[in-house]
Amino acid sequence: MKNAMDELIEKIKKLDNPTVIGLDPRYDMIPECIRKKYDETIEGACLAILEFNKALIDATYDIIPAVKPQIAFYEMFGIEGMKVFKETCDYAKKKGMCVIIDAKRGDIGSTAEGYSNAFIGKTPLGDKKESIFDADFVTVNPYLGSDGIKPFIKDCIEYGKGIFIILKTSNPSSGELQNVITENGEEIYKHMAKLINDWGKDLIGENGYSSVSVVVGATHPRELEELRELMPNAFFLIPGYGAQGGKAEDIALGFDKEGIGGIINASRSLMCAYKKYNEFEEKDYAMATRREAIRMRDELNSAIKNK
Amino acid sequence: MKNAMDELIEKIKKLDNPTVIGLDPRYDMIPECIRKKYDETIEGACLAILEFNKALIDATYDIIPAVKPQIAFYEMFGIEGMKVFKETCDYAKKKGMCVIIDAKRGDIGSTAEGYSNAFIGKTPLGDKKESIFDADFVTVNPYLGSDGIKPFIKDCIEYGKGIFIILKTSNPSSGELQNVITENGEEIYKHMAKLINDWGKDLIGENGYSSVSVVVGATHPRELEELRELMPNAFFLIPGYGAQGGKAEDIALGFDKEGIGGIINASRSLMCAYKKYNEFEEKDYAMATRREAIRMRDELNSAIKNK
Repeated sequence: MKNAMDELIEKIKKLDNPTVIGLDPRYDMIPECIRKKYDETIEGACLAILEFNKALIDATYDIIPAVKPQIAFYEMFGIEGMKVFKETCDYAKKKGMCVIIDAKRGDIGSTAEGYSNAFIGKTPLGDKKESIFDADFVTVNPYLGSDGIKPFIKDCIEYGKGIFIILKTSNPSSGELQNVITENGEEIYKHMAKLINDWGKDLIGENGYSSVSVVVGATHPRELEELRELMPNAFFLIPGYGAQGGKAEDIALGFDKEGIGGIINASRSLMCAYKKYNEFEEKDYAMATRREAIRMRDELNSAIKNK
Repeated sequence: MKNAMDELIEKIKKLDNPTVIGLDPRYDMIPECIRKKYDETIEGACLAILEFNKALIDATYDIIPAVKPQIAFYEMFGIEGMKVFKETCDYAKKKGMCVIIDAKRGDIGSTAEGYSNAFIGKTPLGDKKESIFDADFVTVNPYLGSDGIKPFIKDCIEYGKGIFIILKTSNPSSGELQNVITENGEEIYKHMAKLINDWGKDLIGENGYSSVSVVVGATHPRELEELRELMPNAFFLIPGYGAQGGKAEDIALGFDKEGIGGIINASRSLMCAYKKYNEFEEKDYAMATRREAIRMRDELNSAIKNK
């Protein structure tokens, strides 16, 4: 059986690019030239989002190894939004990109199984099983402990998929729970890191990283460095670069000596690159995204390789 | 502006029933007499689920104040499943039931806003705003701290809705994080309880309970009692009764002197009541559910009022 993390790492190495494009399309960030083609209705907004997403995938699939659609931005448009979500995932996969669904689902037992079926496993139906969103990875929330994680791990093993468990997030209030000090004198996120090491220990691939890995924000460089040491087999999905303030040299601390160890997400800075580069007209938004993707790749590679 | 928790409590008082029916339909638990009407495909399964859900709502809406669809069981059927989810929410609302969407969403900033738009708020579209799933309550995960909660609270205020934040869950592994002892000698769930008290303090209604309340499992009676004391303004959504082992007299510990303070969920024991009562044929599954709903109501009321 293939190991999802090995496949992701091979894609990253092949394109020499440790980044992922986050597709979190807010209606008001879509270029006017797309929006004006459609009605300002739920259906129209969803058509605009789909056109935007496909154009961004077309402009980056040969240089960016993975795509991370944030499902909240599609759920907020209801059924029509979920159709676009599914089409976006399918389109990215068809173009050869690794699909990481950012859903941060967290529940227990048969409910966690349901989520896992939806995103990385298959839904049983009598004697058959049906693929639903069929991503390579999904993000998962650990608040309920191992009961909420094991159904996903079962599907990681059965279908060669992976999960990223949110561990230390990039937002200002992340410390309200994650940095509470335990009676053993360690932060909660370190306590969780040890649990996650254990959950992922049977899914370590040829590259030394587990298909059960973690989300660690770019906005906490010291913690990124500590976690790299504490979790040598965990691959890091790293949000918070760019718009949220995470710097390339800080992020480099999460990588190993071979320059491997994480994949860095950017959403807004890539999707809205057309607002940053004066030399592109709005209608050339996809070329602006490609330009920004190359700049981001080069900046991060330089920081990671020279650390 | 109405207070969502006051409305729920008024419904509970009117029907003299502190319970909620969880609609977590697994295909294999649907009566054969429904399943055989439809193809064994995603579409067929979804039609069977919808027929089952509507029949259970028809059989209980005049005795049970609220319905709690668990979204995972619909997401696992993809787009078709989400259509049935929406139709189930709408049908329950039309019948006058309070709709609590069990989604346990947890994210930050504009992503949390997206989820909140979907479930209790509205989705902005130019100058307009569109309702999507439009429930009365949604369950939320607190792992990311207040950044993940505040967008929901904003919609609770703006639209008169509510949230239940998962605090102490009913599953065996819940203690792996929730019962870790902090350096102050208290369990993590008590640390979280204090944060949640603060988040909910501006939404306390006439009945003394906040529209920002919590999920506390029935399987931890001592903790339920402690939390009732620590969180006098938090209403408890209580899973774990019946199938998971929570007993009526334990659950009563979560209620105040007036017999108010929580709503108890049952999913499997209500949905599959037709397997328990020999006097009902399978085709009379909805009457069996009604019978079990009355038994559950009476057992819980007796325990709560005699504690």
